[in-house]
Amino acid sequence: MNTVKIYDTTLRDGTQAEELNLTTQDKVRIALKLDELGVQYIEGGWPGSNPTDRQFFEEIQKHDFQNSIIAAFGSTYNPKGTPETDAIFQSLLESNARVLTIFGKTWDMHATLALGIGEQENVDLIHESIAYLKPHVDELFFDAEHFFDGFRNNKEFSLNCLAAAHEAGADVLVLCDTNGGSLPADVAEAIKAVRKRLPEAQIGIHTHNDSELAVANSLEAVRQGARHVQGTVNGYGERCGNANLCSIMPNLELKMGYSCIGADKLGKLTEVSHFISEIANLRPFLRQPFVGASAFAHKGGVHVSAVRKDSKTYEHIEPGLVGNRQRILLSDLSGRSNMLTKAEQFGHPLQKDDPRLDKLMKELKLRESMGFEYSVAEASFELMFHKIVSGQHLNYFKLLNFFVMDAKREEDAEPTSEATVMVEVGDQIEHTAATGMGPVNALDRALRKALERFYPSLNQVRLLDFKVRVMSGAVRDTGGTASFVRVLIESGDGFERWTTVGVSHNIIEASWQAVVDSINYKLFRDDQRAIGKA
Amino acid sequence: MNTVKIYDTTLRDGTQAEELNLTTQDKVRIALKLDELGVQYIEGGWPGSNPTDRQFFEEIQKHDFQNSIIAAFGSTYNPKGTPETDAIFQSLLESNARVLTIFGKTWDMHATLALGIGEQENVDLIHESIAYLKPHVDELFFDAEHFFDGFRNNKEFSLNCLAAAHEAGADVLVLCDTNGGSLPADVAEAIKAVRKRLPEAQIGIHTHNDSELAVANSLEAVRQGARHVQGTVNGYGERCGNANLCSIMPNLELKMGYSCIGADKLGKLTEVSHFISEIANLRPFLRQPFVGASAFAHKGGVHVSAVRKDSKTYEHIEPGLVGNRQRILLSDLSGRSNMLTKAEQFGHPLQKDDPRLDKLMKELKLRESMGFEYSVAEASFELMFHKIVSGQHLNYFKLLNFFVMDAKREEDAEPTSEATVMVEVGDQIEHTAATGMGPVNALDRALRKALERFYPSLNQVRLLDFKVRVMSGAVRDTGGTASFVRVLIESGDGFERWTTVGVSHNIIEASWQAVVDSINYKLFRDDQRAIGKA
Repeated sequence: MNTVKIYDTTLRDGTQAEELNLTTQDKVRIALKLDELGVQYIEGGWPGSNPTDRQFFEEIQKHDFQNSIIAAFGSTYNPKGTPETDAIFQSLLESNARVLTIFGKTWDMHATLALGIGEQENVDLIHESIAYLKPHVDELFFDAEHFFDGFRNNKEFSLNCLAAAHEAGADVLVLCDTNGGSLPADVAEAIKAVRKRLPEAQIGIHTHNDSELAVANSLEAVRQGARHVQGTVNGYGERCGNANLCSIMPNLELKMGYSCIGADKLGKLTEVSHFISEIANLRPFLRQPFVGASAFAHKGGVHVSAVRKDSKTYEHIEPGLVGNRQRILLSDLSGRSNMLTKAEQFGHPLQKDDPRLDKLMKELKLRESMGFEYSVAEASFELMFHKIVSGQHLNYFKLLNFFVMDAKREEDAEPTSEATVMVEVGDQIEHTAATGMGPVNALDRALRKALERFYPSLNQVRLLDFKVRVMSGAVRDTGGTASFVRVLIESGDGFERWTTVGVSHNIIEASWQAVVDSINYKLFRDDQRAIGKA
Repeated sequence: MNTVKIYDTTLRDGTQAEELNLTTQDKVRIALKLDELGVQYIEGGWPGSNPTDRQFFEEIQKHDFQNSIIAAFGSTYNPKGTPETDAIFQSLLESNARVLTIFGKTWDMHATLALGIGEQENVDLIHESIAYLKPHVDELFFDAEHFFDGFRNNKEFSLNCLAAAHEAGADVLVLCDTNGGSLPADVAEAIKAVRKRLPEAQIGIHTHNDSELAVANSLEAVRQGARHVQGTVNGYGERCGNANLCSIMPNLELKMGYSCIGADKLGKLTEVSHFISEIANLRPFLRQPFVGASAFAHKGGVHVSAVRKDSKTYEHIEPGLVGNRQRILLSDLSGRSNMLTKAEQFGHPLQKDDPRLDKLMKELKLRESMGFEYSVAEASFELMFHKIVSGQHLNYFKLLNFFVMDAKREEDAEPTSEATVMVEVGDQIEHTAATGMGPVNALDRALRKALERFYPSLNQVRLLDFKVRVMSGAVRDTGGTASFVRVLIESGDGFERWTTVGVSHNIIEASWQAVVDSINYKLFRDDQRAIGKA
């Protein structure tokens, strides 16, 4: 059988990540997106454990799902009572989920230490919990917590736990590397033993990334016969995270010959990954395999010229297969071939002998030698490109002057910052002032206040990140605070994100340049959208 | 043989990462830190390819290394000429590196496409390049570029390339998964074939993380007999990054029974990882295995209570083995033992039950929650320590007030910055002003001008580096320019270098705090030197 079923637990195990906090509505939006992606199962939460999860199971019943089945998660019942007296256990049935996943202890030390019960009692607890629930649902999966640790410590006990779950009617025995400490060879050995003991059982795998091996362990489990893989989008999860489905699915589909969500839906992978990081309000990880912004980005000159000849030379897959795209980064290591690729992307293809190409290269080199860094600040580069290639200046306003004042009036007082800005738009002059938390913030606020009268869409813009770097290559005898400063600003408006750059001895001037580019780029893209070019 | 040699390429392949840009001085500082960690080899760069790398090889000769050997990287010579006519190739010898790593094509398609030469020509090129260089150096490693792709496509050709390198005297044949597309089973199969063909050859491995399998592939290579592993700290590198040494080394040492840097030095791993991300001015990855801030952080209530009973229940290794620590989120636990160690270092040993220890821990926690980062800014930490432990305030002056003014009077003019400072030393007041390139520089100059009258040694102080980081956890609705800002300043006076920190919403205030700490620390150390304590 060549199909591997994907069980997403972003909404349950994923939310154990340090930075991840989702509302019920966030969880519903993510579930609907995962349905588009086509995963077979979506674990929605642990209904009895907290109000968000309980609400999720109520709310989710109002929605239709095309591809995915919603599963509820819970544990074996509390051994101090019966299934009927355990309210959290009962709430699994109240959730109305058609699929349940029940975890039980399969590490002897853990059963005795955490639950405080004997080995046989633990085996019986698993059997009874599953036998009680199974008749009420379509499918029931058993999460064998700490299975690999248990197997290392006491093979017989851990296998007895699985056998009990299997006999009680569990549809899949999901082997969990709960602490993320196993190596692929450990996974292979354990699964071989499980298949020998329970040749009829369906095997699943659930791994964590504490050894940076979660993906490898999941793939090894599939090689050994597992056909159910649990993981999360972007690998979100407690400690170092869960197995990253954004890497497991393309490896299975594109390299190992298995089918999970199908090649068609795999093309949505990058979009889904970004969507979920946006909802979670977490910065996407640039270097993330397959779906990251850097995953198919080329910086070195040697690589870039080879990639232009044949992308296979430095790309392990065609980026479009996972909905990602190739990016050619600009840097002083690189040459004219990068620029030609960029020109095409900007909708102004240039010939190799176009004199504007020389002009562009010259300007780029000059600015890079001053410390401008366009490989990150693509928006600033695009503005420069259009200025040189099409003579479009893309200046939506003219600065007449600004003043910024910071005052600290005694040793323990916070300083105050205030800025005044005078700008000209068309034949109108606006002169205004604002305070801020620091000089750059005051200046940014005063400028936007002055311009919003003319360009109301500027109120969509948010400054998402602000980075300052002193270039020590350029340090002068007067010391660090007088050296060249580079400011990178990342902005977003709900449609897209862009980064701009400024360089000066003066941090105020460098920030000013980056803020001005950010505003001009926003207005330029608005214009492009208006004429259907973006 | 149970020893695996670690070859770090953070300074070369790592700098191909999209966000990573290092100056020569940054590279030297990182190399010295890697030497402390004890990696066997440090690849410093490609001497002929750019000025930063050339300067690095000059500069690095002024330093002594205890554990690591510096290697230079380059390619086979340009086949359009001879080894003598290829200036970049010759610069390998001019670098004075005792170890060279030479890459050559081992994928048939790639040799013909990128170099435009025939198969036998490519084999000869490898042989001649290595035979030419080897007599001049202690060791020479051959990086077999795209080896696994080549092996898939044309086994005979790729093995012939290796055989040529081996015969020409290469000490290690480093099999490179340049595109990061291989699976562990591919790696195993290829290495088996190499060992069969060249049973005497030493095998190395160099992988990329495009399939999220770089660590797994490296470990599999070691299982198959490789004893030389290339990678980077934090997995920095082009596209999805290189194999992450911060995960490979602990897996080898703690789980697989190999020795690489030794258990002792492994305890420095977290510190080195953080040091390098600070130098690179890159945000550390919270969920990074072994060394990330979340790697041993526990959020779930079930986990936390189990972890408190016995940490093995949810931790795959003891965090201290890699210099990391357990964190119970939203709870109060931290490393008192670190503090005791520091106290000894500062010449004020404390007993475990000293009430000042609690006071210190409390203050540290408070300040860390505000964003102060003392692992880098030890000088600021030492000032805080003395203030609490010995009641020494170490304030050599009192600020009465300052004012900073930046003005930009027309669109193309540079802004001007001017600061006034009023300070009190003893019973004397000094009120002065200075201009500067930017507000921080103006303020710094005005302050030093005011104080030099009282403390002439301040004119020895140079501000060497100035770093600004916006802390995204603290971003407010007003956007990036209003979030918390951390400023790190590195100063030097010819005797030593020290780093201080400031945190505020306002970059002027944060800079001020760091500048004040820097000056106080300088005067404190002068006093210590005067009484023979430093």
